[in-house]
Amino acid sequence: MALSSALLEQAVDQLATLPGIGRRTAMRLALDLLRREVHEVARFSEAVRRLREEVMYCRECCNISDSPLCSICADPRRERSLICVVEDIRDVIAIENTLQFKGLYHVLGGVISPMDGVGPDDLHTAELMQRLDQGDVREVVLALGATLEGDTTSFYLHRKLSGKGAVVTMIARGISIGGDLDQVDEATLGRSILERKPYQHAMGQ
Amino acid sequence: MALSSALLEQAVDQLATLPGIGRRTAMRLALDLLRREVHEVARFSEAVRRLREEVMYCRECCNISDSPLCSICADPRRERSLICVVEDIRDVIAIENTLQFKGLYHVLGGVISPMDGVGPDDLHTAELMQRLDQGDVREVVLALGATLEGDTTSFYLHRKLSGKGAVVTMIARGISIGGDLDQVDEATLGRSILERKPYQHAMGQ
Repeated sequence: MALSSALLEQAVDQLATLPGIGRRTAMRLALDLLRREVHEVARFSEAVRRLREEVMYCRECCNISDSPLCSICADPRRERSLICVVEDIRDVIAIENTLQFKGLYHVLGGVISPMDGVGPDDLHTAELMQRLDQGDVREVVLALGATLEGDTTSFYLHRKLSGKGAVVTMIARGISIGGDLDQVDEATLGRSILERKPYQHAMGQ
Repeated sequence: MALSSALLEQAVDQLATLPGIGRRTAMRLALDLLRREVHEVARFSEAVRRLREEVMYCRECCNISDSPLCSICADPRRERSLICVVEDIRDVIAIENTLQFKGLYHVLGGVISPMDGVGPDDLHTAELMQRLDQGDVREVVLALGATLEGDTTSFYLHRKLSGKGAVVTMIARGISIGGDLDQVDEATLGRSILERKPYQHAMGQ
């Protein structure tokens, strides 16, 4: 059945374009917005529009930024010869939260996914090659998801990066810290056995 | 950790105000919007802003409408002496889809919920009373959810409507059509036994 209001219909249609939001949920969101003050909804609408219109990407690492050079790339204490390649800003945040990485990042903006029509040229791969051609990069760490798309992208980058003079590494895969063995999926457990390494005390070094 | 972009932070904050959307999901939605064309996001943002700014409510039934009188209230074939009271536009759509109701509606815009600070005056109850005072309404059907809030609202309206000359009815509660008895919750099954009625063939009448 068509809705009694074209305005409502359009808002529901637009909200339903968001990933994971069906028409039923979109209607719930629209009715919630209708219950708010006009200026509140204007602020909501404005924040979304400005995000896309005024967004800036760091000219070095391609991360979302408010200035031409992001705060990480502009930080003189970061190790400039070490670059960690990630899919998007969420991975930067996740790695920063570990406090274990002191180098710079390179944000691809996605992973290669033929199913979704995403090829290497849709990602910031050219900018990564440029960084390797310009500076003295010692190591590139591939920190992409352990999925088919992540693996494909890692494979592609590894080939493109060979001969550029930098060591290409990838983050370790294995059982999670705090995990029981019987909770781990077979693929991960199998791989963690294949890639076993000399004993090392967890607390030490 | 603070995000590297205030624009992104604001958009995520706003998206996270939507019901059922946490900050993690809001970030996913923001990154999805960033991948779209500028004009697509502008259309999204505009649809949300216009919904709230230009929304109109039917002067009779208070349903969301594009004109001062909604298409149901303006339809001469509807029975004007029969009013079905519902919570919001979703219930109107649901009941219209049954093709079982030929009267008019009255949309309350919510239900009484002291926990959420919603009292009778926050709903379109005064407009309902006005309709009863004006016209010759024969029957008011209360079609509110079978929840504590729905029951409270039905109780309140029943009291307010007594003495207005109309019969006050409520939609039937019982086991669902097509439902197995062992799938039904105890409260519903118990009530369907207490409110049993003379045998009537489901197909017939």
